[in-house]
Amino acid sequence: MLRIIPIVLTGYGNVGKAFVRLLAEKRDMVRGRYGLDLELKAVLRRGGGWIPEGGSLEMPAGNTAEPLDSRPGWKPGLTVEAILDRGEPGVLVDCTPSNLKTGEPQLAFFHTALDLGRHVVAASKGALCVDFKGLRAKARHRGLALKFSGATAAALPTLDVATISLAGSEILGIEGILTGTTNFILGRLEEGISFSDALKEAQSRGIAEPDPSLDIDGWDTAVKILLIANSAAGLDLSLSQIKVDGIRNISAGMLARARTDGKAIKLLGRLTREADDVRVEVGPREIDPSHPLFGVNGTAKGVSFFTDTLGTVTVTGGKSGPPGTAAAMLKDVLNIYREYP
Amino acid sequence: MLRIIPIVLTGYGNVGKAFVRLLAEKRDMVRGRYGLDLELKAVLRRGGGWIPEGGSLEMPAGNTAEPLDSRPGWKPGLTVEAILDRGEPGVLVDCTPSNLKTGEPQLAFFHTALDLGRHVVAASKGALCVDFKGLRAKARHRGLALKFSGATAAALPTLDVATISLAGSEILGIEGILTGTTNFILGRLEEGISFSDALKEAQSRGIAEPDPSLDIDGWDTAVKILLIANSAAGLDLSLSQIKVDGIRNISAGMLARARTDGKAIKLLGRLTREADDVRVEVGPREIDPSHPLFGVNGTAKGVSFFTDTLGTVTVTGGKSGPPGTAAAMLKDVLNIYREYP
Repeated sequence: MLRIIPIVLTGYGNVGKAFVRLLAEKRDMVRGRYGLDLELKAVLRRGGGWIPEGGSLEMPAGNTAEPLDSRPGWKPGLTVEAILDRGEPGVLVDCTPSNLKTGEPQLAFFHTALDLGRHVVAASKGALCVDFKGLRAKARHRGLALKFSGATAAALPTLDVATISLAGSEILGIEGILTGTTNFILGRLEEGISFSDALKEAQSRGIAEPDPSLDIDGWDTAVKILLIANSAAGLDLSLSQIKVDGIRNISAGMLARARTDGKAIKLLGRLTREADDVRVEVGPREIDPSHPLFGVNGTAKGVSFFTDTLGTVTVTGGKSGPPGTAAAMLKDVLNIYREYP
Repeated sequence: MLRIIPIVLTGYGNVGKAFVRLLAEKRDMVRGRYGLDLELKAVLRRGGGWIPEGGSLEMPAGNTAEPLDSRPGWKPGLTVEAILDRGEPGVLVDCTPSNLKTGEPQLAFFHTALDLGRHVVAASKGALCVDFKGLRAKARHRGLALKFSGATAAALPTLDVATISLAGSEILGIEGILTGTTNFILGRLEEGISFSDALKEAQSRGIAEPDPSLDIDGWDTAVKILLIANSAAGLDLSLSQIKVDGIRNISAGMLARARTDGKAIKLLGRLTREADDVRVEVGPREIDPSHPLFGVNGTAKGVSFFTDTLGTVTVTGGKSGPPGTAAAMLKDVLNIYREYP
């Protein structure tokens, strides 16, 4: 028996489009394997929203090329409230651009969605940085899911491992290589390429953003380790409480010296715990070959969790870019509804 | 509000005792963090069962030293049927010794438990090897959980990653170092120590079983990759359909040659897929430094999943031995009952 799951998507950039294509590509498989029919009920972006004909989506995989606002069903000024207020229960899937200071527009979207009984699956980080505690409390109170794999290294299952695979243990520490761009640049520096050339290469290959400072100065890692730490270790830290250092001051000489000693320098987001003193910080650190993240090179990511009863568990890999993020959001949606796996 | 979860434990060897101690140690934390009160209602072993006074357990952490059959509440001849038939719904946690050919006694236990509306959490492998398909079908039909992290590398979250973190993707391949003993011995061989000395060291350090042939000949790996493959990739293979080779024919010379080439030899359990041809096999393989399991040394374990939409995801580590297995079973129990993590 097929269970219909209405989905409202906010944000229609590269990630939003990848998610729409993935929904279409995977629809038959999801029906068969999970007994779920994921119906895209609306796509909202700046300026309005699009409601597919017939109230659902039978979209060929390539159809995201056609702009939303030239389609039948485009409604200028359509709001999240208006769509959710009249629709059936389901999931708000959000991939709007983040504002890390205000958390808007997602913060308003998420509160509206939770107030109206919708689960939330987020790729955007802003609202979760600004008010994770409030959002989680509301979700729990209403018995709703608040999932954000897409915001915490996407296809690398950081949160699944932290909250599901490590259930019942105490997380004593976390160390993560959480930004592919900086790991790539460090690797190139180690090969003797200059910082500016490595950065240019990362940009030309689509690895780094046109404005790469968020990555290079450690803020992308900071946001991810913050969200992982708050979620996995039950904390309520804000970005301003994290000491953040990036990779601008790492020289080829420092990397070469580390290498000579058989070590490597990685940009790590870390949670450390000494008695009741919990600290979250971001900075370059030298690690040796016995460290489980030692071999995480290139654009790869990875995270290690140090626990009391389950030992050290490390997860590495995961597809990067919008397709990987879209696949992580699909995973989150499926895990809200499926029976015991 | 605290939800009471009755637990019946079958098997009281090292793993069963570790689970009882862990329940006692973690009880307050589990109450506070998960809102669950895990009550041990009975412990069954060969010859009878023990029902704690007052119908529940307030057991000091060290109390497993006292034999069950000298305690008040010991009932000779007590059966699983008798206990489950009169008890409230809950979980059967099984860690009886496995018979890989017949699957008994677990197979009868699991069918009884599922028929009577109990979830099943297993550390023992026999029943799952013999009749996974039948057990899973029954569990799904009844809306019950059948979880067995404890049987599939325990604290290394192989099944969580495969079934939860990779939801919505196609698993195109699996490669795993799933037996700590063989990985340890291969490492020692590479260091120039003889096979028999390496084996003796593993035995004296409690890594290898007194009869190590199950590990060395690849069968421990075979059982684990079989269970992971059947569960993760929806297969219905039996042990007899797997080609299994162990590490007896690996010489120090072969390892040295691999090392000279910058490679390593690992005993891998593998699932490969070419079109509709799915193959599961166990054997030593040469891997190079770019392989995500290259750095998994000593008694460590790890598994890589190759997928279509989420890329390659690798998980490594996890505590070994009875305490790690007990912690993996506790995790499974918690994940049956908790709300959205």
